[in-house]
Amino acid sequence: MACLCHQKMRYTDLLKEINGISGKVLSRELKDLEMNQLITRTVQNTKPITVEYEITEYGATLRQVTDVIADWGIEHRKRIIGG
Amino acid sequence: MACLCHQKMRYTDLLKEINGISGKVLSRELKDLEMNQLITRTVQNTKPITVEYEITEYGATLRQVTDVIADWGIEHRKRIIGG
Repeated sequence: MACLCHQKMRYTDLLKEINGISGKVLSRELKDLEMNQLITRTVQNTKPITVEYEITEYGATLRQVTDVIADWGIEHRKRIIGG
Repeated sequence: MACLCHQKMRYTDLLKEINGISGKVLSRELKDLEMNQLITRTVQNTKPITVEYEITEYGATLRQVTDVIADWGIEHRKRIIGG
């Protein structure tokens, strides 16, 4: 979700971007996100076919949650590591 | 953390409360939370010895994060399941 917050991405780009994730896990997660109306999946009529994922307006409401988590995490890091 | 938000708890109570968690995983998670200053571990001089875990004041700051996640989740459930 964090990747898609900024722009549309293709499956292969997501696979490269998310370190260590397997294709099987990525496919399952994307299907789950789509089922939960957080992203859309668009098949582009290119040769070869490409599939693009994009965050939905509803999906963007998750931003408030990820921001609170990230803010808390940054403060926590400073406290624990003294960064 | 959610369990400890409300009261002190002993290891055995936590093990019963958190469905499906193994003793090994619970011990590791508690050690990690203690290292991150989110909980304290107190050995009670009872027979047999009991170990109590309690959320710290700093740990309570996580409440704002878990509340935002929980609120978003409740709304999401309504939207998806139509609850």
